[in-house]
Amino acid sequence: MTTKPANPTLDAVKAFAERFSRLLDERVTFDEKTPVTLAESIRYSLLAPGKRLRPFLVYQCGALCGANEEACYAPAAALEMIHAFSLIHDDLPAMDDDDLRRGRPTNHKVYGEAVAILAGDALVTLAFETLATKTLNREHIAPLVATLARTAGGEGMIGGQTLDIEGQQSETDNRKPPSLESVRRIHSTKTGALFECACRMGGIVAGADDQTLDRLSAFGLNLGLAFQIADDLLDVTASADDLGKKSGKDAEMGKQTYPASVGIERSRELAKSAVSAAIEAIRGISGDTAGLEALAEFAYRRDR
Amino acid sequence: MTTKPANPTLDAVKAFAERFSRLLDERVTFDEKTPVTLAESIRYSLLAPGKRLRPFLVYQCGALCGANEEACYAPAAALEMIHAFSLIHDDLPAMDDDDLRRGRPTNHKVYGEAVAILAGDALVTLAFETLATKTLNREHIAPLVATLARTAGGEGMIGGQTLDIEGQQSETDNRKPPSLESVRRIHSTKTGALFECACRMGGIVAGADDQTLDRLSAFGLNLGLAFQIADDLLDVTASADDLGKKSGKDAEMGKQTYPASVGIERSRELAKSAVSAAIEAIRGISGDTAGLEALAEFAYRRDR
Repeated sequence: MTTKPANPTLDAVKAFAERFSRLLDERVTFDEKTPVTLAESIRYSLLAPGKRLRPFLVYQCGALCGANEEACYAPAAALEMIHAFSLIHDDLPAMDDDDLRRGRPTNHKVYGEAVAILAGDALVTLAFETLATKTLNREHIAPLVATLARTAGGEGMIGGQTLDIEGQQSETDNRKPPSLESVRRIHSTKTGALFECACRMGGIVAGADDQTLDRLSAFGLNLGLAFQIADDLLDVTASADDLGKKSGKDAEMGKQTYPASVGIERSRELAKSAVSAAIEAIRGISGDTAGLEALAEFAYRRDR
Repeated sequence: MTTKPANPTLDAVKAFAERFSRLLDERVTFDEKTPVTLAESIRYSLLAPGKRLRPFLVYQCGALCGANEEACYAPAAALEMIHAFSLIHDDLPAMDDDDLRRGRPTNHKVYGEAVAILAGDALVTLAFETLATKTLNREHIAPLVATLARTAGGEGMIGGQTLDIEGQQSETDNRKPPSLESVRRIHSTKTGALFECACRMGGIVAGADDQTLDRLSAFGLNLGLAFQIADDLLDVTASADDLGKKSGKDAEMGKQTYPASVGIERSRELAKSAVSAAIEAIRGISGDTAGLEALAEFAYRRDR
């Protein structure tokens, strides 16, 4: 790793990640009613080092719309549980078959496949339990549950993972470049949907109106798209050391990525357009949007 | 299959199962936002022939406490989605590794492991989306989500499945009979928890008071326990033809069952005690409890 120049957005994200990880560590605990191995497996993945970008977005969009900081905890924690679940299941042998995630053994390498599947499942129920029992304003529970379920489910992230897996399987038979439409759909659902969810949930706990919620959704969706295109580009251009995982794996697995579809240069342009679309959406909201605009730039320019 | 004498409880359960399956078939549909294979895989398992006992309990307990029939649909459908998810994941190669379920190929034999895992995941999010968007009285959404998440999660069904899997693994190393305490914990969580959930959710949509909800929970938990002991006994005593799956499989896999722990006769006695405890709990509720009492007897006396 090389030393990078100071970046205020990156510093804010890192400081938040430390604080939020500490909150999760203190609050997501289990008593004897939960089997010990299951509790350990859940905490292994949920508390693994991570950028905590989705929770950061909940808090940032919440703050933009005037939410109480503590009101952001329940949706942010629930969303991070859904994200952790998705990583555990995506890494399984039947899916992406990854042994390492950010340099640590994946959940099923440590706890076995059965417990890893169950820990993922339990993280989903825990996410909804967290929304139902820890949301400060009870009026917000129904829209939060509906938003998280829709964006995580078959129309959102889980649907995106299905398309991704199917794409890899057909790709193996027939090595044509994936269509841009198909890659866009996968990225919008697989990554964009939870970013959309994060921003919208921040607005919900602030009591924002429908128009503002829709702007937050559009911001999140485009930010997620930019973030995922950047991820595709990193897999092609970065070293394994920087990534904490093997680079070039996407191509090896026949994954449907932006670079595989339209090449590196056009992918960079499309990532920039998504960043612009995100910034345009958020500028429609009154308040200081500079931090979120900088975050959108960061999502694309990050180097790991 | 031999012809059985008419049984009013069995007839009521069967008639309900047909009606409810038709409702699910009509209402749980997907548009082009959900990948086609995922939608098919979800419907394959959710609409598979089944007793629909958990939804039946929601409607029966709801009716006992004065709920509008249509108010029972959302919790009943959500619960059946959670049940279907659990069957898909339990059947996976990393779990019980079953090729057949009620005489039909299991989900992963038809759609592959990756899609089966994702279809299970999507059924969980769909269950909570159903509660958040189809519950008639918005006041009931938070307690319904909290109840379903708690009873399905790490303290409930998913926790029970974890203990079951771990028990089988340690059993293989060391063939001592499982302790009654350990089997009781597995059955109370793995099966009892969702039966508890069904009965409590029926009470919630009826606006029942806390004492009544607790009675309904106790009824459901004991009913589930009796049902699961009966299942253990059937695995030992029934033919594969009657079960729609291989019999004797529990012992072969070293599963922690009541007969393996305390023998057939004592298991029968304990099932009867659970039925009595269920009946005692429900009798504390004013109203006509005869149908639910008959159901408790049926759960134990059923022959498949």
